[in-house]
Amino acid sequence: MVELYFIRHGIAEVATDDIKDEERRLTKQGRQKTEKVAQRLKKLGLHFDFVATSPLVRARQTADILMAAGLSSQIEECTHLAPDGNIYNWVVNWLEPKNFAPETKLALVGHEPCLSRWAEILVWGEAKEHLVLKKAGMIGIKVPETGSPLGRGQMFWLTPPKYLL
Amino acid sequence: MVELYFIRHGIAEVATDDIKDEERRLTKQGRQKTEKVAQRLKKLGLHFDFVATSPLVRARQTADILMAAGLSSQIEECTHLAPDGNIYNWVVNWLEPKNFAPETKLALVGHEPCLSRWAEILVWGEAKEHLVLKKAGMIGIKVPETGSPLGRGQMFWLTPPKYLL
Repeated sequence: MVELYFIRHGIAEVATDDIKDEERRLTKQGRQKTEKVAQRLKKLGLHFDFVATSPLVRARQTADILMAAGLSSQIEECTHLAPDGNIYNWVVNWLEPKNFAPETKLALVGHEPCLSRWAEILVWGEAKEHLVLKKAGMIGIKVPETGSPLGRGQMFWLTPPKYLL
Repeated sequence: MVELYFIRHGIAEVATDDIKDEERRLTKQGRQKTEKVAQRLKKLGLHFDFVATSPLVRARQTADILMAAGLSSQIEECTHLAPDGNIYNWVVNWLEPKNFAPETKLALVGHEPCLSRWAEILVWGEAKEHLVLKKAGMIGIKVPETGSPLGRGQMFWLTPPKYLL
């Protein structure tokens, strides 16, 4: 099984006429909370073989905080993780070609409602939007390393940041 | 919404010719780990208005550890939480008549695979056995305080004990 850790970006500034959605940065509070979460993950002994992040600024900054905490040494921007990303394209064009070895641990940094929808599709085959994923929260899912992961995942973790501080 | 916290009993001794399943007690390691989880829940600021537990010894001992940690002041044995318990009977004969106020926090201590099946039925309307609930682990679900909770729950927490130690 490959372990996927969906991580939602931290608290970000609001969009204005001057700030486009894709350029929204983490607020000071968002940065601090995300740093605390990253430190706690490190203390829990987590290490990701790979961090893939949505290219939007608030997600990239969140991923950079994970890297700075020493949670991984490899990072890549992945357009499928942007808010309009499609899980079916991600599986076929990104996940399957990577051909990850069993036990690989991947962090995927992105946005709501995409991440929790993707998690539901991986675990139950369809999205009902009944998972609550807070900013800087995470979902852990194991998927088989071969064959389609859709509807075949096993969820082993879902946590808001308040239980990681 | 009412918050339900499904908590699986800690590590228990194995059944033998001399020890019936319902009499299996927590092992020393099981007790210690469960106590650490309870202390962490307390530190996280959790407090349950009510603890309902399966009457089986290993579950009752787990519930008693939660009480001893000061996580609640009310406990009740609930036969629906035994391994052969049925969620539909539990909803009709136990949950609905209690008529809990919004924001009530309930801990429900029981067994696998019942607890994670119940969680899936509450959240997605059916059980696919795709949740992993470790011993002394927990699942947090919000359900509406009126009307059927089946398929209407929102899962906000799922954690193995190792992330609560």
